[in-house]
Amino acid sequence: MTDLAVFGAGRIGHVHALNAASLPSVRVKYLVDPVASEQRAGLAARIGADIAPADTVFSDASVDGIVIASSTDTHAGLLLQAARAGKAIFCEKPVSLDFVTVEAVTTAVETSGVVCLLAFQRRYDPDFRFVRERIVSGEAGALEHIVMHTRDPAPPSRDYVERSGGMFRDQAIHDFDMARYLLGEDIATVYAVGNCLIDAEIGAAGDIDTAMVTLTSVSGRFVQMVNCRRAPFGYDQRLEVLCSKEVLYVENRPQRGVTIADADGFRASAPMNYFIERFADAYRNEMAAFISLIETGGRPLAGIRDGLEAQRIAEAALVSMQRGMPVRIGPHWRP
Amino acid sequence: MTDLAVFGAGRIGHVHALNAASLPSVRVKYLVDPVASEQRAGLAARIGADIAPADTVFSDASVDGIVIASSTDTHAGLLLQAARAGKAIFCEKPVSLDFVTVEAVTTAVETSGVVCLLAFQRRYDPDFRFVRERIVSGEAGALEHIVMHTRDPAPPSRDYVERSGGMFRDQAIHDFDMARYLLGEDIATVYAVGNCLIDAEIGAAGDIDTAMVTLTSVSGRFVQMVNCRRAPFGYDQRLEVLCSKEVLYVENRPQRGVTIADADGFRASAPMNYFIERFADAYRNEMAAFISLIETGGRPLAGIRDGLEAQRIAEAALVSMQRGMPVRIGPHWRP
Amino acid sequence: MTDLAVFGAGRIGHVHALNAASLPSVRVKYLVDPVASEQRAGLAARIGADIAPADTVFSDASVDGIVIASSTDTHAGLLLQAARAGKAIFCEKPVSLDFVTVEAVTTAVETSGVVCLLAFQRRYDPDFRFVRERIVSGEAGALEHIVMHTRDPAPPSRDYVERSGGMFRDQAIHDFDMARYLLGEDIATVYAVGNCLIDAEIGAAGDIDTAMVTLTSVSGRFVQMVNCRRAPFGYDQRLEVLCSKEVLYVENRPQRGVTIADADGFRASAPMNYFIERFADAYRNEMAAFISLIETGGRPLAGIRDGLEAQRIAEAALVSMQRGMPVRIGPHWRP
Amino acid sequence: MTDLAVFGAGRIGHVHALNAASLPSVRVKYLVDPVASEQRAGLAARIGADIAPADTVFSDASVDGIVIASSTDTHAGLLLQAARAGKAIFCEKPVSLDFVTVEAVTTAVETSGVVCLLAFQRRYDPDFRFVRERIVSGEAGALEHIVMHTRDPAPPSRDYVERSGGMFRDQAIHDFDMARYLLGEDIATVYAVGNCLIDAEIGAAGDIDTAMVTLTSVSGRFVQMVNCRRAPFGYDQRLEVLCSKEVLYVENRPQRGVTIADADGFRASAPMNYFIERFADAYRNEMAAFISLIETGGRPLAGIRDGLEAQRIAEAALVSMQRGMPVRIGPHWRP
Repeated sequence: MTDLAVFGAGRIGHVHALNAASLPSVRVKYLVDPVASEQRAGLAARIGADIAPADTVFSDASVDGIVIASSTDTHAGLLLQAARAGKAIFCEKPVSLDFVTVEAVTTAVETSGVVCLLAFQRRYDPDFRFVRERIVSGEAGALEHIVMHTRDPAPPSRDYVERSGGMFRDQAIHDFDMARYLLGEDIATVYAVGNCLIDAEIGAAGDIDTAMVTLTSVSGRFVQMVNCRRAPFGYDQRLEVLCSKEVLYVENRPQRGVTIADADGFRASAPMNYFIERFADAYRNEMAAFISLIETGGRPLAGIRDGLEAQRIAEAALVSMQRGMPVRIGPHWRP
Repeated sequence: MTDLAVFGAGRIGHVHALNAASLPSVRVKYLVDPVASEQRAGLAARIGADIAPADTVFSDASVDGIVIASSTDTHAGLLLQAARAGKAIFCEKPVSLDFVTVEAVTTAVETSGVVCLLAFQRRYDPDFRFVRERIVSGEAGALEHIVMHTRDPAPPSRDYVERSGGMFRDQAIHDFDMARYLLGEDIATVYAVGNCLIDAEIGAAGDIDTAMVTLTSVSGRFVQMVNCRRAPFGYDQRLEVLCSKEVLYVENRPQRGVTIADADGFRASAPMNYFIERFADAYRNEMAAFISLIETGGRPLAGIRDGLEAQRIAEAALVSMQRGMPVRIGPHWRP
Repeated sequence: MTDLAVFGAGRIGHVHALNAASLPSVRVKYLVDPVASEQRAGLAARIGADIAPADTVFSDASVDGIVIASSTDTHAGLLLQAARAGKAIFCEKPVSLDFVTVEAVTTAVETSGVVCLLAFQRRYDPDFRFVRERIVSGEAGALEHIVMHTRDPAPPSRDYVERSGGMFRDQAIHDFDMARYLLGEDIATVYAVGNCLIDAEIGAAGDIDTAMVTLTSVSGRFVQMVNCRRAPFGYDQRLEVLCSKEVLYVENRPQRGVTIADADGFRASAPMNYFIERFADAYRNEMAAFISLIETGGRPLAGIRDGLEAQRIAEAALVSMQRGMPVRIGPHWRP
Repeated sequence: MTDLAVFGAGRIGHVHALNAASLPSVRVKYLVDPVASEQRAGLAARIGADIAPADTVFSDASVDGIVIASSTDTHAGLLLQAARAGKAIFCEKPVSLDFVTVEAVTTAVETSGVVCLLAFQRRYDPDFRFVRERIVSGEAGALEHIVMHTRDPAPPSRDYVERSGGMFRDQAIHDFDMARYLLGEDIATVYAVGNCLIDAEIGAAGDIDTAMVTLTSVSGRFVQMVNCRRAPFGYDQRLEVLCSKEVLYVENRPQRGVTIADADGFRASAPMNYFIERFADAYRNEMAAFISLIETGGRPLAGIRDGLEAQRIAEAALVSMQRGMPVRIGPHWRP
């Protein structure tokens, strides 16, 4: 039996807590969330967990691992405490909005030797994994370039935007991670343009809602990304990988398998909306992988260093956009 | 809290037992299966149920409902016992391979007044329900005709075929039910042709593997069906409804959202394989609906009389095929 | 140089005359149409043909072949005259609405030995040919059954319906021909139901607008067809062939390659509308094939006997619908 | 009657000459090509044109317009001669590989007042026009950003590459033009990366085979482009326009309307291959538009200044790639 504590009873905390609780060998012993709410009480009841403060978790030797799904400003502290306490860690991105903190925490966690899975759930999605495996196996031939589209269904609230760290750190970071994952190598240059074309509130918050990013890899291959805070039809999350033998596309997943035809043509369903639904399988696989790491060992598909490297690209994108110039990065680059 | 007993620890028994157990207000108190097996023990453990004989279930006043997922030859007896004991019933089709028995059991269950949901799960599938709602709401206009395709991914074993009651009672019965459900009226004539074109073992068992059926409704509308025991690409389960304002298509659901393009063209994923996967949502919805019927009342989307009427069409299809003539049916027709 | 005469300056006459005239080795010497009209004059001018009576054509030894695209009631007479005069014949279906006449003309044309291509243009369509070749080559495996959908974009005028010979002889005849062509064998039984569900004017003219037909072949394979005088989205002309190794689908051809996405989903273009546009390539190929038959010999993909056999099935469908019974046919069956 | 002279009997010369000759009001009086060949003789015969030297064309007052489809190094001279002679001009891009020459010729042609259609055929393609019209009409809402994919089916020959002016001037120039056309405004900054990842011969010729370009418009909107000399499946020419109300996609046009399904999934046809086939309608419309300009006046969808502006972006892309920096351009920028 593996005992877990889940930090955070919000939307993504619910996803992870329920996935963990549904696994036969897992007990979610504690739910940690400082704010009393119906949501917190309801989740605790559903998964049979005690509501407890963080200290209880770290002083309970029976707790094997923790799931960090609380607000971003708590991540770094919890990571350091868990590393010291020798607990396995499942951590939502980002580690911190402050890059120097991310570096320091990464070093501390790596030095401690604890298991740490960074929750880039897309790496655990069956479709993205299928593409990755086809590249790694050689069936697809040599990877030449990548195109990614990420568009949210609707602009987030101004409040969310202000706490998010900006579109590159909040949204595009998943694409930066996927770029490294599929290329199998690091990024050398980053060029980004961004603007507020859709929602003036986002601009008022000092952020952008539309960006285009070009990455070049150390070996000279290319990645092109569109990031946007709205698509008129809903959530748009697609990938196109050009290899020498074939092109691989991850398409959007439709809500429904029904097509309606009339004089205006053939209307297929809009895509699943939103990431909680689209990546439901990915979240399940990710939690199962975390438990498997605790119970039988191995390496996560994404570790804390992957979080650092994706964030480095995000920081470089921000600098590039601000200066209107490409930014050359390397393992020691920092904003 | 609703207490259930599940009969049958086979494949579909697992589906229903796990779906029931995952509902917050449900306790699966008993699992009934006469054959001791790892499968039975494992399922009982997962859902926290006691393995018990049928008598225990029917004499335990705390049991609110039963789920009949045992072998077909047990259905009629269990339905009658449950009706006498006043337990709500969730029953897999068919009620019996003997039509006179189906009639008798239908009458007995209806007379008893117990809740009885007949498990035509397709009525609970979100895609088929969407189509139905668009017809009922008038958005689609007047329904004129229906085309259905049902093809299994591979021929079943000879053993399965011999116990199945034949392709019309076993496979096409879902299509016969869907025809009535979408038309909102009964069938008047049935014409069927069938042959063994794919698997000689099926022919040796006295069954067919390919059939084409034409139904006319009481009001003169048409339904055309293809039923087949194999499609080269996997499970093929599609619907096309021509209405005066629009055509509605239920498409196959792909396994993956990945397309691969090379010199041979664009290759999309084969469909989900097989019905357990394709109709996972339908099975969940169906069980939730059954619990809701017990807890708050209402009428099931498919009741025991719908099972009788679908089977009447199946019997007529068999007669039609044997005689090479269309068969006219009505509420009193029997084979 | 091959000299032709075209009979009929209507819609399909235009298609054939222009296709013929665009071929480098062809001269359309005569256009025959008894009714003086702008249309006739315009077509004659565009193709550089003389307007002439039929007698001129048949007494001009330089005319190598004739294209019969005039009204149905003239076909039989022109076929017989051309056979006597030794002219190659390209003839629109049907030969006659009277089956006995079709038989007599077929015999006369065959006895004369003249080239005769019956204009089942679908046999010359690249998509249908691709399917046929994949079956003939064995790549697709053994053909097991066929499903065809033919729906017009809108009901024809009452006047057209009254002269058409009815939906089976007018529309479904192309599907009957395709069934024989793909199966590579003759039809043994025909069952048809039909009704007037869409346009009361068609019913008033004594015809149907919706039909469903089931054919069995001599060797016991199946064909299922939907024929309809309207689809809400336009022209629907599809084929699905289940073979042991693969399923082959001929899809509708979209008008445009543009998809529009909004909150209602992804809207693809309606299909090409109507057969003149959808089968533009087929008509071009068909005329080129006719010229090639004249210039270098060979056999047409569809000859006059194919017209007779397709019409035999149409006659049987009509009888089946009227009697409510399947009809068994053979080489000597007549209505 | 409009009299034309066609310069160039190569592949694209054939397309334009045949399209012109097929128009009822057009006579192609002269075909000009200095190299005697079967191809030249064959084309002249098919369209009934005299083979003549350029001087004959410009001294024949009956010639209304000329079609420049000869090698790139002849374009500037022919444009100037035609402008002086007052002949309407249909000119293949580019005007010249030397930007200063393009500027000079543009000024001369504009000053002369002759009709000049620059052959960016994509503007005349029905799909791209449909998208443009939906934007202009306001139905699509405000255009926010554009994504374009252009990939050739296979790398061109080294010889072609060496004469082409490089991938930006040769291939991407169509996308640069489309960007301006759809945005309805000029480009402000250009950033490009490029590399030779596919075909070492292209690198040896000093060119690239893969490029990614980001454009920003004067008003701050974005365009992202992938340009590549190979796609494993054939010709890839797609457009995606994100507007506030809808997203518009121009998809590839399939070669065939046949789908093949087997255990590997559903295989749709590869796209039309190559631009001569894909843009056949566009070429026809473009020539018809040119004749209409001569006969009834009006303005072309693309004029010589559009060629200049598209080429300015191409030059800036080249500079950007060489310097590794974005380039800011304006109406007076030159490389």
